[in-house]
Amino acid sequence: MERYIRTDLAVELQEEISEKSLLQGVEIYTRYSKDKKIKETKIDVVDEQGAKILGKPIGTYITLESGELRGSDEDIHKPLVDMLHKNLKELIKENDKILVVGLGNREVTPDALGPYVVDNLYITRHLLSEGIIVNAREISAISPGVMAQTGIETGTILKALCKETNPDIIIAVDALAAREPTRLNSTIQLCDTGISPGAGVGNNRAVLNEETLGVKVIAVGVPTVISVPAIINQAIDNMLTVFSENGKNLSEGLTEEEKYSIATQLIEPDLAKMFVTPKNIDEAVKRISYTISEAINKFLELY
Amino acid sequence: MERYIRTDLAVELQEEISEKSLLQGVEIYTRYSKDKKIKETKIDVVDEQGAKILGKPIGTYITLESGELRGSDEDIHKPLVDMLHKNLKELIKENDKILVVGLGNREVTPDALGPYVVDNLYITRHLLSEGIIVNAREISAISPGVMAQTGIETGTILKALCKETNPDIIIAVDALAAREPTRLNSTIQLCDTGISPGAGVGNNRAVLNEETLGVKVIAVGVPTVISVPAIINQAIDNMLTVFSENGKNLSEGLTEEEKYSIATQLIEPDLAKMFVTPKNIDEAVKRISYTISEAINKFLELY
Amino acid sequence: MERYIRTDLAVELQEEISEKSLLQGVEIYTRYSKDKKIKETKIDVVDEQGAKILGKPIGTYITLESGELRGSDEDIHKPLVDMLHKNLKELIKENDKILVVGLGNREVTPDALGPYVVDNLYITRHLLSEGIIVNAREISAISPGVMAQTGIETGTILKALCKETNPDIIIAVDALAAREPTRLNSTIQLCDTGISPGAGVGNNRAVLNEETLGVKVIAVGVPTVISVPAIINQAIDNMLTVFSENGKNLSEGLTEEEKYSIATQLIEPDLAKMFVTPKNIDEAVKRISYTISEAINKFLELY
Amino acid sequence: MERYIRTDLAVELQEEISEKSLLQGVEIYTRYSKDKKIKETKIDVVDEQGAKILGKPIGTYITLESGELRGSDEDIHKPLVDMLHKNLKELIKENDKILVVGLGNREVTPDALGPYVVDNLYITRHLLSEGIIVNAREISAISPGVMAQTGIETGTILKALCKETNPDIIIAVDALAAREPTRLNSTIQLCDTGISPGAGVGNNRAVLNEETLGVKVIAVGVPTVISVPAIINQAIDNMLTVFSENGKNLSEGLTEEEKYSIATQLIEPDLAKMFVTPKNIDEAVKRISYTISEAINKFLELY
Repeated sequence: MERYIRTDLAVELQEEISEKSLLQGVEIYTRYSKDKKIKETKIDVVDEQGAKILGKPIGTYITLESGELRGSDEDIHKPLVDMLHKNLKELIKENDKILVVGLGNREVTPDALGPYVVDNLYITRHLLSEGIIVNAREISAISPGVMAQTGIETGTILKALCKETNPDIIIAVDALAAREPTRLNSTIQLCDTGISPGAGVGNNRAVLNEETLGVKVIAVGVPTVISVPAIINQAIDNMLTVFSENGKNLSEGLTEEEKYSIATQLIEPDLAKMFVTPKNIDEAVKRISYTISEAINKFLELY
Repeated sequence: MERYIRTDLAVELQEEISEKSLLQGVEIYTRYSKDKKIKETKIDVVDEQGAKILGKPIGTYITLESGELRGSDEDIHKPLVDMLHKNLKELIKENDKILVVGLGNREVTPDALGPYVVDNLYITRHLLSEGIIVNAREISAISPGVMAQTGIETGTILKALCKETNPDIIIAVDALAAREPTRLNSTIQLCDTGISPGAGVGNNRAVLNEETLGVKVIAVGVPTVISVPAIINQAIDNMLTVFSENGKNLSEGLTEEEKYSIATQLIEPDLAKMFVTPKNIDEAVKRISYTISEAINKFLELY
Repeated sequence: MERYIRTDLAVELQEEISEKSLLQGVEIYTRYSKDKKIKETKIDVVDEQGAKILGKPIGTYITLESGELRGSDEDIHKPLVDMLHKNLKELIKENDKILVVGLGNREVTPDALGPYVVDNLYITRHLLSEGIIVNAREISAISPGVMAQTGIETGTILKALCKETNPDIIIAVDALAAREPTRLNSTIQLCDTGISPGAGVGNNRAVLNEETLGVKVIAVGVPTVISVPAIINQAIDNMLTVFSENGKNLSEGLTEEEKYSIATQLIEPDLAKMFVTPKNIDEAVKRISYTISEAINKFLELY
Repeated sequence: MERYIRTDLAVELQEEISEKSLLQGVEIYTRYSKDKKIKETKIDVVDEQGAKILGKPIGTYITLESGELRGSDEDIHKPLVDMLHKNLKELIKENDKILVVGLGNREVTPDALGPYVVDNLYITRHLLSEGIIVNAREISAISPGVMAQTGIETGTILKALCKETNPDIIIAVDALAAREPTRLNSTIQLCDTGISPGAGVGNNRAVLNEETLGVKVIAVGVPTVISVPAIINQAIDNMLTVFSENGKNLSEGLTEEEKYSIATQLIEPDLAKMFVTPKNIDEAVKRISYTISEAINKFLELY
């Protein structure tokens, strides 16, 4: 099953669990700023039980949602940048030296989010070490490329790089997979538990986290794709619902996991490795990557 | 229904019709060159009845298929270039001035096929008019961009351009949608009946053909995506087959069209407008666009 | 001489004329907004004599200069966008339908300014014609590519397009050549007399203006390169000044034109067709193209 | 002086020394294959004296020159690929695991050579480690980006990477600076003494070689730019020659180094950091990067 992504969004995983009483070890806070049109959801996985239930490691998962993000309403841009920066600041210490990692393949549009973010950052590490600027936050960055391009696990590249450059914290930006089409390109997820590069396009690589890299990893992700099984699952759900109207609901009592395993059996292996993405993905990725870059660039304004 | 692509490939449309005897007005020839590992299928739609049955206008549809195309076997490259050029030559007159049109959006990987082909062409029109070269085939080219980028129908741009530059023939290169995952990036379709730009990613724009542009249009297409309804349809088919084993096949007697309309009803409108594409689409599009460029560039070797 | 650009900037041409009294038929207004750190120069060429003296056709040339532009000071961004928009508004009528043309080659960094500007525009023409939006300014756009890519004169493509789409005004964005290194990527020139595409990289194509296209053309240009003769000329000037100290200044009495013709004789023809550009041209072009896009996008806020 | 590149080509450095008898410690072999239209020059710097005279470390410098390279004559492509591969093979052991490094900034056209080469390589390292293929040469690759993009010295990134992935040899591909315009994009230089990234665009970074990285470095470079001082120097030379005709040659007895130091004093510091490149640099870099990729990909045919 692990090979097939249901969703990378904690907020969607908890939605799958109908009876909220069952969410033991998981604490959920929601805040909706009507004027800012942004919904902020904080999910704390506090213990192993919660981790098991949600299928996500112990840690904090923050989701910023805004339907506006998908349109070209610029009014949403600044408040979202501010809110994203605020949340990053809470996860990063005053003087932490930041290494931003742009995960993904810049040649595949929905997977180019990470590299695009890096393209728009103000990099200071070399300017500080050369004494060209002073008193600024140290920011370095890299877009290592994907394994098909380098032949090297991203984790291996980053582990090596951290040893030599000693950042205090990594901000890893990557494309994710969602279940709900409405969440594509309209949701930003932050978490402090690391990330598996390429999850967005269905490659499960070794996880990048403090354990594997020796440096704490803040993951910033935006769902830009939906996995094929997720879509099949939904269609089947809809169909079974139709049948159930005159008779027993065939899917009754099936867990999401079980439904996914049915879905994946109904499609060719080829398809399970493909992804679904909207036609305007180029504009969407360009716009959101810019929002994330701005939120990170604000770390330079502290001084 | 028109909004949802089943497939742009004539070869898949005729496969949908189980009883070949029903294919009146449609003539099909197949040739398989074992050594060259390329399957060549020629479908002639000879009359209105055939056009109605196949859902494609009267004309010739040639398909070159090669599983190898998907791998990185370079041995297949040259023979495929030669075969594609041979087929183009049969559709283009000795002295025809060629305008190559790269349809699609270069910012969306699976839709970038056309622009990439144009990027690798040898353009001669200006060199001839300036007398820098002589006795060469006149080739001009343009990648007009998609309507979301220009605000202008591609047909409007090309119609205007043809009036001013008077090409004898247009080769329009575009990404297509297929039904079978195995055909993605492994099939090249030629036809002399024109093309609807953006079909590959589900935009049905005004058709580009001799009638609309005043210039004969040869369409060269490669399926780089699958439409979501096509995938849902397949999954449901599989599921109904399972149920049918113990009892009546629920899909029995349904036409492909009917199955598609069921499929489209089972998915959200958002999804119907998305597309499915493989993870390695960047390498695939780069490789195939190069094959097509080479086949067109061979028109310069005639002299 | 025409083959060798001295400068595309009217502001530099008038600087070459030492005795301002000689500038008959040329009116110059300068305004420097200290707080905004932007210098605004308006040069009106009022008659044929002025045109002959300055070597620019009769019309208005507005230059916005800001050293800040070259740095990454974001504070300058918004005021510059506002000032550029204000100037564009004075040249464009309330209801003019705008066609933005991104001149230049997106594959050559210093020449990619125009295409980059188009990439970041909000295009409305198709949304208006499809009734998806109402009461918005009609904006369409195209990046036609350069003649080496299309084999077709840009003027031919635009003339054809204007006939079919009937814009009221064209905003043509292109890279220019300057004489002073300090002006590179720090100056924006507007004029209402049209433009010669590719001037920035030394191709003198047919001028695009109301006469040739049948539509008024506002040119927006940023110098991103210096021509080789301009640099040679400067070095020789410096050297002759050294010699002149002990003896007669060898360049005394030579006009700028004469000095250029000496310079061009001192370099190989190959070199005369090359251009000089700074190493950080990628960041510079990205930043300035964004400023111009924003200034044009503001036309949508009128409603 | 180090800040200003005269040329990165050993072949041009030796040309500067008029009296060949002075080239002690430097051995030069030239071979011209008329049919293949390729000139092959091998320069062996055999001792410290030679290194001092030529200004290049002890080692072998091979230059492949072909005027054809600048045109679009495809006949030259294959023989050049073969000759480049042959030369690489002589420098690399049968079973050496290869790491290809694409130096330079992919966003600045003349500096994008390295990244473009990496884009077209067949990467095998991950396929071998996953057992998907066997008996193939191990090839991995990375385009680390330039310091302005990462804030990290390229040497630091590579040193770290080598420690983790243990390649036997590095092929470092980079853009270079030449003195002669005719050599731009028509010359490929190989050497076994390492490379200073960014030399092509005038950044002198720490040299990458066996000493600094712990892995032998084969440098493959193509001159895509000329430094501004090189061009000024040439123009002044020409001018002084004119003066010398009627009187003493002012430059008589000046060494190349001295002439360069005069040249650099005659231009503004800004300019000294700029570079000169031809207008068709996009086509040139695309074509040559493809030649180099092919020559490296041939290492996979050994099995």
